[in-house]
Amino acid sequence: QSINKSKLGEGLQFIGADSSFSLKFSTRFQMLYQGAINNSAEQLDDRFLIRRARLEFEGFAYTPKLEYKIELGLSNSDIGNDDPARFNNADNIVLDAVAMWNFAPGWELWVGQTKLPGNRERIISSQKTQFVDRSLLNSRFNIDRDTGLQLHHTHTIGTAVVRESGSISMGEGRNITVDNAGGYDYTAKVEVMPLGEFEGGGAYVGSDIYREETPKLAIAAAYNFNDNASREGGQLGDFLVDERDLRTLFVDYMFKYRGFSSMAEYVSKTAPAGPVVLTSNEGQVEETFVTGNAFNIQAGYLFPSNWEIAGRYTTYNPEKVTNLRPQKQYTLGLTKYIVGHSLKVQSDVTLQDTPGTENTYLFRVQVEVAL
Amino acid sequence: QSINKSKLGEGLQFIGADSSFSLKFSTRFQMLYQGAINNSAEQLDDRFLIRRARLEFEGFAYTPKLEYKIELGLSNSDIGNDDPARFNNADNIVLDAVAMWNFAPGWELWVGQTKLPGNRERIISSQKTQFVDRSLLNSRFNIDRDTGLQLHHTHTIGTAVVRESGSISMGEGRNITVDNAGGYDYTAKVEVMPLGEFEGGGAYVGSDIYREETPKLAIAAAYNFNDNASREGGQLGDFLVDERDLRTLFVDYMFKYRGFSSMAEYVSKTAPAGPVVLTSNEGQVEETFVTGNAFNIQAGYLFPSNWEIAGRYTTYNPEKVTNLRPQKQYTLGLTKYIVGHSLKVQSDVTLQDTPGTENTYLFRVQVEVAL
Amino acid sequence: QSINKSKLGEGLQFIGADSSFSLKFSTRFQMLYQGAINNSAEQLDDRFLIRRARLEFEGFAYTPKLEYKIELGLSNSDIGNDDPARFNNADNIVLDAVAMWNFAPGWELWVGQTKLPGNRERIISSQKTQFVDRSLLNSRFNIDRDTGLQLHHTHTIGTAVVRESGSISMGEGRNITVDNAGGYDYTAKVEVMPLGEFEGGGAYVGSDIYREETPKLAIAAAYNFNDNASREGGQLGDFLVDERDLRTLFVDYMFKYRGFSSMAEYVSKTAPAGPVVLTSNEGQVEETFVTGNAFNIQAGYLFPSNWEIAGRYTTYNPEKVTNLRPQKQYTLGLTKYIVGHSLKVQSDVTLQDTPGTENTYLFRVQVEVAL
Repeated sequence: QSINKSKLGEGLQFIGADSSFSLKFSTRFQMLYQGAINNSAEQLDDRFLIRRARLEFEGFAYTPKLEYKIELGLSNSDIGNDDPARFNNADNIVLDAVAMWNFAPGWELWVGQTKLPGNRERIISSQKTQFVDRSLLNSRFNIDRDTGLQLHHTHTIGTAVVRESGSISMGEGRNITVDNAGGYDYTAKVEVMPLGEFEGGGAYVGSDIYREETPKLAIAAAYNFNDNASREGGQLGDFLVDERDLRTLFVDYMFKYRGFSSMAEYVSKTAPAGPVVLTSNEGQVEETFVTGNAFNIQAGYLFPSNWEIAGRYTTYNPEKVTNLRPQKQYTLGLTKYIVGHSLKVQSDVTLQDTPGTENTYLFRVQVEVAL
Repeated sequence: QSINKSKLGEGLQFIGADSSFSLKFSTRFQMLYQGAINNSAEQLDDRFLIRRARLEFEGFAYTPKLEYKIELGLSNSDIGNDDPARFNNADNIVLDAVAMWNFAPGWELWVGQTKLPGNRERIISSQKTQFVDRSLLNSRFNIDRDTGLQLHHTHTIGTAVVRESGSISMGEGRNITVDNAGGYDYTAKVEVMPLGEFEGGGAYVGSDIYREETPKLAIAAAYNFNDNASREGGQLGDFLVDERDLRTLFVDYMFKYRGFSSMAEYVSKTAPAGPVVLTSNEGQVEETFVTGNAFNIQAGYLFPSNWEIAGRYTTYNPEKVTNLRPQKQYTLGLTKYIVGHSLKVQSDVTLQDTPGTENTYLFRVQVEVAL
Repeated sequence: QSINKSKLGEGLQFIGADSSFSLKFSTRFQMLYQGAINNSAEQLDDRFLIRRARLEFEGFAYTPKLEYKIELGLSNSDIGNDDPARFNNADNIVLDAVAMWNFAPGWELWVGQTKLPGNRERIISSQKTQFVDRSLLNSRFNIDRDTGLQLHHTHTIGTAVVRESGSISMGEGRNITVDNAGGYDYTAKVEVMPLGEFEGGGAYVGSDIYREETPKLAIAAAYNFNDNASREGGQLGDFLVDERDLRTLFVDYMFKYRGFSSMAEYVSKTAPAGPVVLTSNEGQVEETFVTGNAFNIQAGYLFPSNWEIAGRYTTYNPEKVTNLRPQKQYTLGLTKYIVGHSLKVQSDVTLQDTPGTENTYLFRVQVEVAL
């Protein structure tokens, strides 16, 4: 065994002898058990699966100012798609493939496929969430990954750190191989951290695992305009029979102090021309964009023993005309961080309250192993 | 080129500078030529393909007591599936993704997706088989991989090494992304090695490549109960229109001494409610679980030159009611182990005797390259 | 970070402490923007995608005389196929999986799946092309990858280097998992470099990035006979309803001197029994093999600043009976090689002249990042 100057959670790290490149390799996987049960029902619906299995390659090429990242999804739940013609009949293995060029102090130009500068919960790696998985707000309204250009600018104003980001992308999400449908997608985002940077990039890490000595706050707002979107969620979901402009506004914050952390997000998505694109003869909605709003707030406390208790409340309010079902979720989570987010066991229980149907309880246990 | 303290067959090995993790990476592939010909027929049906191409990542995380393993299949013959809806429309790339916790001396708890503690031939890696590939017994009756929990206990009684294993899993095999169908799957296995451990884990390695100085024997029995199975083979094969409980009993042994090795297995699989689930109006069986029994015995001698001659006899007796065809196979194999199972050329000839049809001859040559 | 004795473009290189194996790992990806516009049309059809994302593992096993190579394609545009039954319902991830045995001085035997010894442009890695991508000649007529055996012989006659290659393969291209359709495929190739070897294997590298001090020339001719081919392009394209023998002749050269480089290819493909296999009642061609001829010539000059200007002219003349459309292409390319072919930005503009339709302009920009 050769010694690698790295430790668990940092991957395997190499640098070329002439410093012309670096490579950090890591792999991780999540084993998820989840069960769901009705209030009355006696039947348990459950599954146990490899939720995510990933390979990650990142580093710099030629100069530390030019970074690259390739992230691959390998588990079935990560890589499927159900519109083969637009994806060259292939699995969506590539998650990120992006070059990031630090062309001037504080400025970065990103080229390729990666997450858009959207809501905080989405940008937090699925490895670093406070609960077993992201919230209902995120699954319904996030703008995910896309292919295009991003410009990022970071500067300070007094003690405050300010970041502006903008992107222009294709608008149909990752791994599309055909010509761009409809127009492009535009995102703008501003984030302020009035009390300075978080430890270890913690504004985008679930739970206060670095135990901030002083209070830290991040507030962000992002706006996305998807010109003639063709998928029900913009970058995600089924392709629909017609296109619509989608406008999405995200507002969120992250707060951390001495083991306590809290995060909240609000999102509103609209399709000015109306979200519904196909209705049956009986007037039933057959195809619709997912519009409406959602709110998510969560908070947790990390005990010195690295056990954490956390709570989450989420509301999802689709526009009435879409005929989608609104839902409220109440989640209680318990996590043991053995080695931060690199080796942890997480569990949570969620009460799913959908008007007009019986309440459902969802319980999950997940083990994360990450180099 | 940086030096890695490893050698061919051991992969590339790294350990974190603080000993917080280790990673062994290896890759391997098999190039297979196979041809089949009838006794009378003049036509040769043949193919040449990359039979397997794999990437493997394993090591420990945090403590040597917590091991992980990820194995990925990449060749087409390894990763297809034909019921897209249950696999999220994605390839089955992930073979193993499992964490193994040595929580007390002699005890291990496994969580994730990996091979069940079933028949010996299945647990022997496809890299380490004595013939070009596993036997007909295995392809018809093995219980393959599944997702769930396994408990393993190893202890000694005098010179004898005893291993008990038990598992509870979902029962539909690897990479299912939908809710569990039917009930769970339960396996129990006992293995005894009365003459002590084999060299290099040889009880699960084909051929006596380590040339045991003293006779070594392993005897095992495993029992599997698949509650309401939905695939024709339990963990493998097509999903059928109805479910059945499946009961499978495996008995096997491995013996090795000074270059000689012998292995045999017997399996019996039953569906107490009857294996056939769909019959045509004309009384033809259209869908059935694969039940019945099979026997496989093989032996080989490894010459000092690392050439091996081996023979194999297999009978497969499906239950009459399934209307599946029984078959007998006689195989003669010739292998040159250049560097153990890491670099070898294997060939074999098989006479396939199926009552009611003409005999077929199958001949194969395979080259294995493994880091 | 551990130091690896390598530099950008050479991958991460390891050798076993006992010199029993070596492994070079590299990864690369291409981010491609391409747009097309008609002379009259106001509409722009464009796309931005991860064109290629690859992992590569190569080295030697046991002895430096036995080399192996595994190359994996991961991007959707690399791995799809649309005849699932012949590919085991799986993505075509494996590009190369081949062992190369230098069994005698000057001789190599290759076993497995890799590129056939066909036209120069195809053998040049997609990483090392002079333009954003290969020419129309190549996409219509190349013989791609296949599974089988290849024999290569290299020797010198005076200052001239001569290489003869021959292959026998299955004939349906990579990753087929079913029995061989039709007969085998045979290739023979001769290449002469009368002025000696190119720097850095430059006969198969686009652009004179090594700036040859003395003129270098390579001339090659290859002939391929695909006995009873079943895909429209032999190793590529749709499977057709009937089979045809295909005969393909390639002639090409590469010339390089002090930053100037030029390459040309001519190909002629015929199906003696006639390429058309299915015609509608109205006499329309519904299924045909792609036969005819094509010519491609290109040249470029690499300025001392590592900017290159290059031009390309391609004609594609399908046989009239196929009813496929002929096309002429005029391409002008501009490339900045930051670190050779490992970090470069390429762009090109192509005028596509198809008789009977309006001219189209295609413009592309591509960034390549390769370890």
